[in-house]
Amino acid sequence: MTSTPPVTLDDVRDAAARLKGVAHRTPVLRSRTLDARVGAEVYLKCENVQRIGAFKFRGAYNAMSRLTPEQRAAGVAAYSSGNHAQAVALAARELGSHAVIVMPEDTPRSKRAATEGYGAEIVTYDRYTGDRAAIAQAVADERGLTLIPPYDHPHVIAGQGTAALELLEEVGALDALVAPVGGGGLIAGSATAVKGLSSDALVYGVEPEVGDDTRRSLAAGQRVAVPMPRTIADGQAIEIPGEITFEINKRLLDGVVTVSDDEIRDAMRFAFERLKLVVEPSGATGLAALLTGRLEQVPRRIGVIVSGGNVDAGRFAELCGG
Amino acid sequence: MTSTPPVTLDDVRDAAARLKGVAHRTPVLRSRTLDARVGAEVYLKCENVQRIGAFKFRGAYNAMSRLTPEQRAAGVAAYSSGNHAQAVALAARELGSHAVIVMPEDTPRSKRAATEGYGAEIVTYDRYTGDRAAIAQAVADERGLTLIPPYDHPHVIAGQGTAALELLEEVGALDALVAPVGGGGLIAGSATAVKGLSSDALVYGVEPEVGDDTRRSLAAGQRVAVPMPRTIADGQAIEIPGEITFEINKRLLDGVVTVSDDEIRDAMRFAFERLKLVVEPSGATGLAALLTGRLEQVPRRIGVIVSGGNVDAGRFAELCGG
Repeated sequence: MTSTPPVTLDDVRDAAARLKGVAHRTPVLRSRTLDARVGAEVYLKCENVQRIGAFKFRGAYNAMSRLTPEQRAAGVAAYSSGNHAQAVALAARELGSHAVIVMPEDTPRSKRAATEGYGAEIVTYDRYTGDRAAIAQAVADERGLTLIPPYDHPHVIAGQGTAALELLEEVGALDALVAPVGGGGLIAGSATAVKGLSSDALVYGVEPEVGDDTRRSLAAGQRVAVPMPRTIADGQAIEIPGEITFEINKRLLDGVVTVSDDEIRDAMRFAFERLKLVVEPSGATGLAALLTGRLEQVPRRIGVIVSGGNVDAGRFAELCGG
Repeated sequence: MTSTPPVTLDDVRDAAARLKGVAHRTPVLRSRTLDARVGAEVYLKCENVQRIGAFKFRGAYNAMSRLTPEQRAAGVAAYSSGNHAQAVALAARELGSHAVIVMPEDTPRSKRAATEGYGAEIVTYDRYTGDRAAIAQAVADERGLTLIPPYDHPHVIAGQGTAALELLEEVGALDALVAPVGGGGLIAGSATAVKGLSSDALVYGVEPEVGDDTRRSLAAGQRVAVPMPRTIADGQAIEIPGEITFEINKRLLDGVVTVSDDEIRDAMRFAFERLKLVVEPSGATGLAALLTGRLEQVPRRIGVIVSGGNVDAGRFAELCGG
């Protein structure tokens, strides 16, 4: 007897119905050069051109669309200095709610401005003395807000899975899907969609070398923590997998591979120069795994989630200009 | 009585039939942010993801597809250190021909390598003492090659017009089309397609401020030269319009506006950060004209040809990283 999984293919389909006409149905790109380099047919699902520039909008919107009218009217809270902040801010605006985002004081002005641009209220804390989760929870409790977690929630995971679902609907069955792993929401949702549609397709996650908490956890059979990783892939700087995401990933993933920061930079440059696409470091890890030949198997038809493109021109120049 | 134009809508349609399955049918992108900034519906035709990274493949291939079997077997020649070089090289490979490309000795290694990568032979000359057109003609004469001009040829112009034709087929009638002007091939082909399909649509060209030879020529009613322009928009560093392109543009254009190098950089940054698209300086001039409000009229539905994306990561960092 097996227990019911926390997220099913039907949950992903339901999320897709909620996101219809709200999230972009992002394009799938192909490249002759990439196919030749990898020795496979590669299908790039371009979530870098998703609203707010990353897949995160899917999960945040799906979770918030399920709140009661009272909860929406009271508002939501989230802690993030990255894509989840903008995702929650935009989803709140779309749903007629109000978002309070907890960010470190030293968050770059551009990220703060983007989040405020969607109408969110920012509460800052000192990164060196404050605990952001506790602060966000305190703000939420005090003001009666619902906390929207960045990955460890079934509705968030189901929303993130809709990118893979769209990819399969558009190009048909794949032999493998590759996606970045941070807290594990994107890969858990993707694996739920892919394995639900064709159980023999392979699903691989990709982590930065120094942030391989999911790889280690899978090897140990339980969640293990790593020291806070220092990597350019800021979307994947996570110490320990989520509880729900790990439960799903333990069942469904065929493997997690790692890539170095230099390999990520090379993949960003490849995307820029050959694909004419702007991809942020975390968004390039799937591509990096393919370009470095890191997968154990390279089957014929491979999908890759290019998960985000939020890197400004100055930061890109620092990372890839040399 | 009017004379027959050198290129007609039927010529563009014929070119489109020849390019089918060979050139990419490039995507048309939209952006809520861009629409809000411009106050119009903007349709971006993304020739930066065309084969060789620019629209130039369309014209070169169309012209070369019309050579006799003997001419193809003998081979072709071209002079260019930029996108036309790669366009002729790739078209030659696709058509089973052989290309000799005349380039300055100091052409960046990456551009040379890209052209050689398509199987072309490179002949170099000293930029300060040699006349590239004369050298290319001499090479062509000596070896029995057909010279493929970069813009001033009816088949090249008809080929370049296929991007606008595809755009109109995909999104329906436009109120205006905006495209970069270098030698004038792209805008002449685009205007032929657009005005042929709906005679009251406006067609605007965009030149770099210091390279406004077409703008001045239109004002003078005849081709006038400017000093060789120093601009980051290297694809538009042209001293005088082509004869055939000017004849067409004189009849069909509603205006030519200019943009500065700084405005081009801003447009490249906007494309990078908001659209997640890599656009080379010349390719960004149409977008720059819209973002700076340079058009006299801003009608409701505006198409823009984003003509190329060949800028490497290091050069982009130099231009836009500061």
